[in-house]
Amino acid sequence: MDDDVENGNLVSYQEKARTFPNLRSKPYNPLIFQIFTRINGRVFAVLLLLALGAVLYVGAATSPIVVFVFSICIAAFIFSVYLTRWVLAKDEGPPEMSQISDAIRDGAEGFFRTQYGTISKMAVLLAFVILSIYLFRSTTPQQESSGLGRSTTAFITVAAFLLGALCSGIAGYVGMWVSVRANVRVSSAARRSAREALQIAVRAGGLSAMVVVGMAVIGVAILYATFYVWLGVDSPGSMKVVDLPLLLVGYGFGASFVALFAQLGGGIFTKAADVGADLVGKIEQGIPEDDPRNPAVIADLVGDNVGDCAARGADLFESIAAEIISAMILGGTMAQHCKIEDPSGFILFPLVVHSFDLVVSSVGILSIRGTRELGSKLPVEDPMAILQKGYSVTIVLAVIAFGVSTRWLLYTEQAPSAWLNFALCGLVGIITAYAFVWITKYYTDYKHEPVRTLALSSATGHGTNIIAGVSLGLESTALPVLVISFAIISAYWLGQTSGLMDETGSPTGGLFGTAVATMGMLSTAAYVLTMDMFGPIADNAGGIVEMAQQPESVREITDVLDAVGNTTKATTKGFAIGSAALASFLLFSAYMDEVAAFSHLPFKQVDIAIPEVFIGGLLGSMLIFLFSAWACAAVGKTAQEVVNEVRRQFIERPGIMEYKEKPDYGRCVSIVASASLKEMIKPGALAILSPIIIGFLFKMLGQFTGQPLLGAKVVASLLMFATVSGILMALFLNTAGGAWDNAKKFIETGALGGKGSDCHKAAVTGDTVGDPFKDTAGPSLHVLIKMLATITLVMAPIFL
Amino acid sequence: MDDDVENGNLVSYQEKARTFPNLRSKPYNPLIFQIFTRINGRVFAVLLLLALGAVLYVGAATSPIVVFVFSICIAAFIFSVYLTRWVLAKDEGPPEMSQISDAIRDGAEGFFRTQYGTISKMAVLLAFVILSIYLFRSTTPQQESSGLGRSTTAFITVAAFLLGALCSGIAGYVGMWVSVRANVRVSSAARRSAREALQIAVRAGGLSAMVVVGMAVIGVAILYATFYVWLGVDSPGSMKVVDLPLLLVGYGFGASFVALFAQLGGGIFTKAADVGADLVGKIEQGIPEDDPRNPAVIADLVGDNVGDCAARGADLFESIAAEIISAMILGGTMAQHCKIEDPSGFILFPLVVHSFDLVVSSVGILSIRGTRELGSKLPVEDPMAILQKGYSVTIVLAVIAFGVSTRWLLYTEQAPSAWLNFALCGLVGIITAYAFVWITKYYTDYKHEPVRTLALSSATGHGTNIIAGVSLGLESTALPVLVISFAIISAYWLGQTSGLMDETGSPTGGLFGTAVATMGMLSTAAYVLTMDMFGPIADNAGGIVEMAQQPESVREITDVLDAVGNTTKATTKGFAIGSAALASFLLFSAYMDEVAAFSHLPFKQVDIAIPEVFIGGLLGSMLIFLFSAWACAAVGKTAQEVVNEVRRQFIERPGIMEYKEKPDYGRCVSIVASASLKEMIKPGALAILSPIIIGFLFKMLGQFTGQPLLGAKVVASLLMFATVSGILMALFLNTAGGAWDNAKKFIETGALGGKGSDCHKAAVTGDTVGDPFKDTAGPSLHVLIKMLATITLVMAPIFL
Repeated sequence: MDDDVENGNLVSYQEKARTFPNLRSKPYNPLIFQIFTRINGRVFAVLLLLALGAVLYVGAATSPIVVFVFSICIAAFIFSVYLTRWVLAKDEGPPEMSQISDAIRDGAEGFFRTQYGTISKMAVLLAFVILSIYLFRSTTPQQESSGLGRSTTAFITVAAFLLGALCSGIAGYVGMWVSVRANVRVSSAARRSAREALQIAVRAGGLSAMVVVGMAVIGVAILYATFYVWLGVDSPGSMKVVDLPLLLVGYGFGASFVALFAQLGGGIFTKAADVGADLVGKIEQGIPEDDPRNPAVIADLVGDNVGDCAARGADLFESIAAEIISAMILGGTMAQHCKIEDPSGFILFPLVVHSFDLVVSSVGILSIRGTRELGSKLPVEDPMAILQKGYSVTIVLAVIAFGVSTRWLLYTEQAPSAWLNFALCGLVGIITAYAFVWITKYYTDYKHEPVRTLALSSATGHGTNIIAGVSLGLESTALPVLVISFAIISAYWLGQTSGLMDETGSPTGGLFGTAVATMGMLSTAAYVLTMDMFGPIADNAGGIVEMAQQPESVREITDVLDAVGNTTKATTKGFAIGSAALASFLLFSAYMDEVAAFSHLPFKQVDIAIPEVFIGGLLGSMLIFLFSAWACAAVGKTAQEVVNEVRRQFIERPGIMEYKEKPDYGRCVSIVASASLKEMIKPGALAILSPIIIGFLFKMLGQFTGQPLLGAKVVASLLMFATVSGILMALFLNTAGGAWDNAKKFIETGALGGKGSDCHKAAVTGDTVGDPFKDTAGPSLHVLIKMLATITLVMAPIFL
Repeated sequence: MDDDVENGNLVSYQEKARTFPNLRSKPYNPLIFQIFTRINGRVFAVLLLLALGAVLYVGAATSPIVVFVFSICIAAFIFSVYLTRWVLAKDEGPPEMSQISDAIRDGAEGFFRTQYGTISKMAVLLAFVILSIYLFRSTTPQQESSGLGRSTTAFITVAAFLLGALCSGIAGYVGMWVSVRANVRVSSAARRSAREALQIAVRAGGLSAMVVVGMAVIGVAILYATFYVWLGVDSPGSMKVVDLPLLLVGYGFGASFVALFAQLGGGIFTKAADVGADLVGKIEQGIPEDDPRNPAVIADLVGDNVGDCAARGADLFESIAAEIISAMILGGTMAQHCKIEDPSGFILFPLVVHSFDLVVSSVGILSIRGTRELGSKLPVEDPMAILQKGYSVTIVLAVIAFGVSTRWLLYTEQAPSAWLNFALCGLVGIITAYAFVWITKYYTDYKHEPVRTLALSSATGHGTNIIAGVSLGLESTALPVLVISFAIISAYWLGQTSGLMDETGSPTGGLFGTAVATMGMLSTAAYVLTMDMFGPIADNAGGIVEMAQQPESVREITDVLDAVGNTTKATTKGFAIGSAALASFLLFSAYMDEVAAFSHLPFKQVDIAIPEVFIGGLLGSMLIFLFSAWACAAVGKTAQEVVNEVRRQFIERPGIMEYKEKPDYGRCVSIVASASLKEMIKPGALAILSPIIIGFLFKMLGQFTGQPLLGAKVVASLLMFATVSGILMALFLNTAGGAWDNAKKFIETGALGGKGSDCHKAAVTGDTVGDPFKDTAGPSLHVLIKMLATITLVMAPIFL
């Protein structure tokens, strides 16, 4: 951390509690923005037009479908510029609000800069490792026939990796950039109208969502089109189009690599600050949440931005990128097996689905209006109902758009009704997404039985509360697993019976059916991400209102928005883990294809009756447990440092409690920032190194004992067991955490003794335990699962 | 529960706190004991001699090795009779002690009777189900050639199942019978000498261990010999000896079926009482553990007997039985493949190894003397060191005995050095056992870093204590998994290179090598079980001393023994889970052989790249999470009932706290008993029905989609994923629970503020959470893993 953040440049504390001093340090503007703002307006416009022209030219040379995708993405960017202007045009409220918001912004930007500095150094290092591996790997027969040399493949993979990492970083930055600006505007609007505050938060979330999803789609599309034109794909003697998607895996790996560290670092930051602030503030001193007297409160608010906004942006970016690439690979493989004349429809289908996602989600976002409709008779509307209505609009449109896309791209004369089967697969995916959202809501919303039982168990003490929460979390894994099982089997079966046959006449569309279901699940991703981003923005707005000591009526509005945000955050986590489960299942197949292509050996089975392969699975599951352990321990350790610092400040500055002395917010931010950067390395390194080391060791063992492909098989088994354990562990951690949080909120509504009762204290303990579960370890596991799948794809040469 | 226990027949409470009224209800004597005691002594002796003669005759007709096994087992039973007389000859102490002990005994026996009544009804029902399945199954080619009809196989399987269930029940009963009698004798001895108390507890534990292990061995041996003689095995036209072990799987299933419910019911009982007693007694009222004023204290002490003693007896009985049978199956299969002339050595090897176990463990038990050796200069000896010394003696002897057994039984002229390789496999197993014990000790003993860090995290509150404990537990899974991986791979490799070749000339001893390593691991099982049984006996003795309000010096002695008992309990859990992991790996192979034999189809692979098979794995892992959830929730729910009852008694009888009024112990016992019987059904039914239903559904799906053996493959995958997840989950639960318990004990030694500090309160919360983890869900998972493996073996016809 820089000195300015550490010392905070905090001027002397004023007597009057309601206004805050200028907490800002020097304004920070990233290099890329500085360059943009310094370029002459006309030059910029010309450059932009030139870039646009080049992109469209390359697209046109590839396929009209690519031009369609480009156009939609550009339209989405223009829409997000409109949303930015709209949000920024809102007022920042009174000075005490904007001062707090400035302090949050500085903390978030400072941490972001340092964190991404570390991540980018690691990414460059890894790029060199990948480069050297690929320069020494053997080439595939396809590559040989297309004249694609070793060094070309190496540079292509590294370039894709770096582009993926960069885009993921930008996605994270945009998420944070928006949220640190929108939070204060939501606070300010809450002084006027609940509906306006809701609208600002939704549009700010929507803006990030448009950029994140749009960038994932256009990034893959640009890479695809560039390679297509550059390598002269489909011209005689060069590469075939069906092999092209395999070159893109680096992009997915780059994205997941950055997302993993973004989520780990951000997750540790946000929850260490939160737990530390709560333990001393709420439990020991008995002051409310987000009270300005708590020295860790700014760190907590900073954490919402770097942990929830930046990290979730990178997470969903990575989900979509990985899912698109794996579906493209499977589509290509299937089209080749079925000897479909023009396979580009199957390959480009995922890009089109996500383009439509941008369109339908925009409609959904715009459907949430700032003013109440005429004829509405309810005095106060439930914000959840408004968001749900927008979601329903989006889903209905998504179903229609999905049907159109399948008819347009997946119609083939060989199997005239195949597109209908695939449309049904998409429907399976959409229903799965809905079911996941519903199940998560059932287990985490205090309107339903489970959270109420959990709240009741707090009445008999801390111990029974924790036992009940752990059981609830473990139990909540059952229904999602049944849903996922049903989705995989039915989508596979719909694909198998689509009528598509391979050269031997056996049905072959099963895996692609699963891929289409995954796309169906993600076909409203932008709207879901909007709802997700809404959460931390509302949370922050609540914090600013509390710190600026606004009247009770304003706080009530932000409290309601915050509660809704908690539910949407929990449900989108369910959504994320469901799509990760499906996407990983696709990536297994891509991995097996890749290994078979490189090793020149058939690789169709992962037989866990072989002891070494079984051991690989055991190690894979263990990896999940160890990773979760380290992620939770990191929060625990950092939180203890925060607790000690806050206790020290309360002792050394006794005036803080009477608003007479100013807490040193900057020091808490700085402690959390440096601790979380340090703590994110251990679990991150474990995740990246384990599959590589295990694969390499078993490859050696295989050579010694005469078992070909042993390394690759062990890694495949590691991957599958890790995925299964990871899904279950993530579901457990997310749901338990969400349920504890809402059990506490339920008691705070006045049930079972209300705030301050022993029951409430036990519930606060549960909430504290749940924090690292649901916001550090759980979401990191989503990313870990997909990172494992992409790292094995890229690192496959090591295991062979 | 019967009325006598519910009402307790409690006479009016006396003013004097130090003596207790007669808490006894009518004495309970099980039917089988009544029959024994009513028979005339001479008639009994004649009957016994006849039975002995018959057994030895059948043994002699089978193989001299069986005669050896019989003789050792009978010697072990005689030794256990000697130990019983020795223990019972000790005095029961003053009347206040024996009155408490009587109350505990009544509670334990009452619960045992009701619980085993329920279990035996379920067992009989299941026996009918098995019978009808086997009457409609198809026969194997081996059976056809040997003339073994459907009905014969059906009755053999059901008989074996019922015998296994009966023996498991007796093992549990013996464990409890001993402990309810030994506890008061240990308390009484503690008034005289620490060393004598230790010796009584060890010999009482040893007596159960001898009976449990001896019965597991002789049960299998009798079944084997009876079937051998009855079916005329190895005579022309009948069954071959290598197929015989497959007929014994029913015995293993019967044992694990009873063990599962014994562990679930007992585990829920003991921890619900413990948690309930602690939450009100320790935390709310601030009275010490086992204080006579706590109405739940007798229930807690009863729980130690039914939960720890009875259940662990059934658990280890089942481990040994399942391990012997699976190793016999693998030995037979291998001997057949290698065309070894006399395969009986390979088949009977596990029985001999466990016979030697009885001998070497007896020496180990006897090596713990009641008086101090001359020349010992230490003023007070550490009981742990004494137990460890006995363990070292046992291990050294076990290594020698293992070498002798391999040379005797596994020497074959086809591969003259094979026995040496197998001896090394055994050594791998023994080292694995040692490593497991060491790792568990490292993570749960407060002499080492992890528990100290955990204790330190209590200083910042309940929340950080729980987070740290969960991380510690999750992290502690890593080392055991690495050890198991190394053990499986190295034992497999030693087996492969033993020189044994099958008909095609490829090495084939790998799996048998793993089996031998498992036997090595279990080759000191009787001594380990002794140390395990020691724990609850010492715990109970401490409770009796506390309740009888003995002087501080006596309490100190039992406290030390209790602390040692906690460590030995934790380490033997590590041992149990390690051997379960290895044994399950063997049972997979047995299952695959069984399926191949019945389906007449090759079944060599479990390919998780097939979607349905992958789903099977996902469901298997989910089963573990759901089972753990329900087991923990059962404790939580029952504990809440106890809390409410204890609170009610304190309110309605305010005199209790001043020793003026008598708490109603019987009511607490009765509440816990009926609740735990009710709660054990749900997780138990889940464990038994899931594999059957899933196997059946996927069999149907396979028939519909034209995939033969799909049901069997899905079940195999379910089994393997459940095993992997089960091992990890059990390690997590056991270690976290043990660490929390000892972190609390560490603080109670005076560290970090000592008893009564806030830090101690946070640690008590951790201990409460850990209770259902380490004594209900964790140990139930050990049994569940093996039960799944045996149920799939017996129920295989449903999936085909």
